[in-house]
Amino acid sequence: MSQELISGTIALILGDTYIGEMEDSALLELPGRRIAVTTDSFVVEPLFFDGGDIGKIAVAGTVNDLAVSGARPLYLTLAVVLEEGFPLADFERILHSVRDTAAGAGVRIVAGDTKVVRRGEADGIFLNTTGVGILERPLRLSSRSLRTGDQVIVTGYLGDHSIHLLSQREGLGFEHRVRSDCAALNHVVADVLDACGEDVRCIRDVTRGGLGTVLNEFAQASTTAIQLSQTALPIRPETAMAADMLGVDVLYLANEGNLCLVVSPDRTEAALKALHSHAESAHAAVVGSVVEGQPGTVRMTTQDGRERTVDLLYGAQLPRLC
Amino acid sequence: MSQELISGTIALILGDTYIGEMEDSALLELPGRRIAVTTDSFVVEPLFFDGGDIGKIAVAGTVNDLAVSGARPLYLTLAVVLEEGFPLADFERILHSVRDTAAGAGVRIVAGDTKVVRRGEADGIFLNTTGVGILERPLRLSSRSLRTGDQVIVTGYLGDHSIHLLSQREGLGFEHRVRSDCAALNHVVADVLDACGEDVRCIRDVTRGGLGTVLNEFAQASTTAIQLSQTALPIRPETAMAADMLGVDVLYLANEGNLCLVVSPDRTEAALKALHSHAESAHAAVVGSVVEGQPGTVRMTTQDGRERTVDLLYGAQLPRLC
Repeated sequence: MSQELISGTIALILGDTYIGEMEDSALLELPGRRIAVTTDSFVVEPLFFDGGDIGKIAVAGTVNDLAVSGARPLYLTLAVVLEEGFPLADFERILHSVRDTAAGAGVRIVAGDTKVVRRGEADGIFLNTTGVGILERPLRLSSRSLRTGDQVIVTGYLGDHSIHLLSQREGLGFEHRVRSDCAALNHVVADVLDACGEDVRCIRDVTRGGLGTVLNEFAQASTTAIQLSQTALPIRPETAMAADMLGVDVLYLANEGNLCLVVSPDRTEAALKALHSHAESAHAAVVGSVVEGQPGTVRMTTQDGRERTVDLLYGAQLPRLC
Repeated sequence: MSQELISGTIALILGDTYIGEMEDSALLELPGRRIAVTTDSFVVEPLFFDGGDIGKIAVAGTVNDLAVSGARPLYLTLAVVLEEGFPLADFERILHSVRDTAAGAGVRIVAGDTKVVRRGEADGIFLNTTGVGILERPLRLSSRSLRTGDQVIVTGYLGDHSIHLLSQREGLGFEHRVRSDCAALNHVVADVLDACGEDVRCIRDVTRGGLGTVLNEFAQASTTAIQLSQTALPIRPETAMAADMLGVDVLYLANEGNLCLVVSPDRTEAALKALHSHAESAHAAVVGSVVEGQPGTVRMTTQDGRERTVDLLYGAQLPRLC
């Protein structure tokens, strides 16, 4: 594939979700001056899976990063690194997925770039998406704003994305029973913020590092203690079984369509109501709360009634799931 | 290197050019609502060369893309894909270069991302930078606005970057005589626009595809004809010799610190004066003009007085120079 063919294919398939020009930069008029910016590269393996593919993850991941900062996602850039010989049909399938996910989330792709490297110099395809969103709400969502009594919510089953991809990679069989949760959640976030306003303290996309990492960052940033209930965690039995088999802890597995929210106690019901109105967060549940305790720590009451510390996980995490 | 070490290293070395936060997105206040956005991935080989490295190219390239659209570059994101085992010392050297180039250009790195892939799944390091700039001038620089009589300027010696990298790759010896022109040129562009305002029709960063490609795009977009003078092209004898040896045409070689400007005839002297006041564009020269002729074509008067067409180059270009 030549550069010209690749650029032409991208423009053709992205259709009206692509408003880039041939000039060097996209020129855009924003509806305000307060913006959010985020970037992410995607080196997912396998590229295609049940529930999505690298194209869907690349759009949804960056849309979600903007959304959880309180921004309305508007624009994405899309940069592609292709290994020579990458199948055109796979590339087109990924682009269709980029387009569909962008259209669903209501964002436009405004600029693109493609680099082709020789065989063996990349693993098929890597994507980068960088997103720009507009901050229209007066909110300042921050992990520093947690207070004792706040409730911790997760919006869906934990670990499914990682278990699905790991199982597909290794051929364990669980890939047919647990699918990826990959989804753009900006409409979900907008509804929760409409319902609860500044009673939402902060939101985080529970990707690399999993819920355990997110909650440790929350506890440290706010110098609070967080108490989890293991029985409250939404985890599918199949996912728990696969995690046991693989020797991994669901608390640290990456998700691609799961949010963690901290909400004031009196607006928790309103938040859950808003979440349950969306298919992507139909299983949202309160899993813990901010408590008096040693600042910066996360503790969990286990199924058998014991207490354990949920540490910040250092070192190697499972690679190439997001 | 673990993710934590990598993130820590990035934050430490980038210092006050890095204003990212631990939260998912950077929240920024812009001085206006009209912005420019551009993205670029960098898969440069070799990573280090005389005149720069992949870090300098990644910052300068995106800064230049914003600048030539008339924007003042403000913010960059930096996404890194690292091959497992990539030397920490090389990574730090690249980050220092990112910092120095960003500081020189007056831009901040506002968000970052790092992904590590296994050995053999990437070639050392790939970078992506995405830039946001603010459009403060009422100008609308566009390749569609060329008119007969306009003058075509290039700001420096052509082909040096490509010849240097190709020569270093192949060990041809020219790498000691020709160095890369890699540079951030936003201050140069600002001075030209201050001097000439809307008499600057358009500017383009002469990277992949070289001057031949840029001028063909200009001619097609504006449905004008462009006439070049080969003797006016600033090309070093060493570069011409190396290009001959390698069987490549300097007109299509990528540069990393070279602009092509089209300026109205009565402001050409003012533009050259502004350009000559900067070291990076001290050798700026008029190389041609917009003429009556077949719309969409580029012609060149050669050294021996003949006329040739400068075609749009289709198909394979030299890989991994930018």
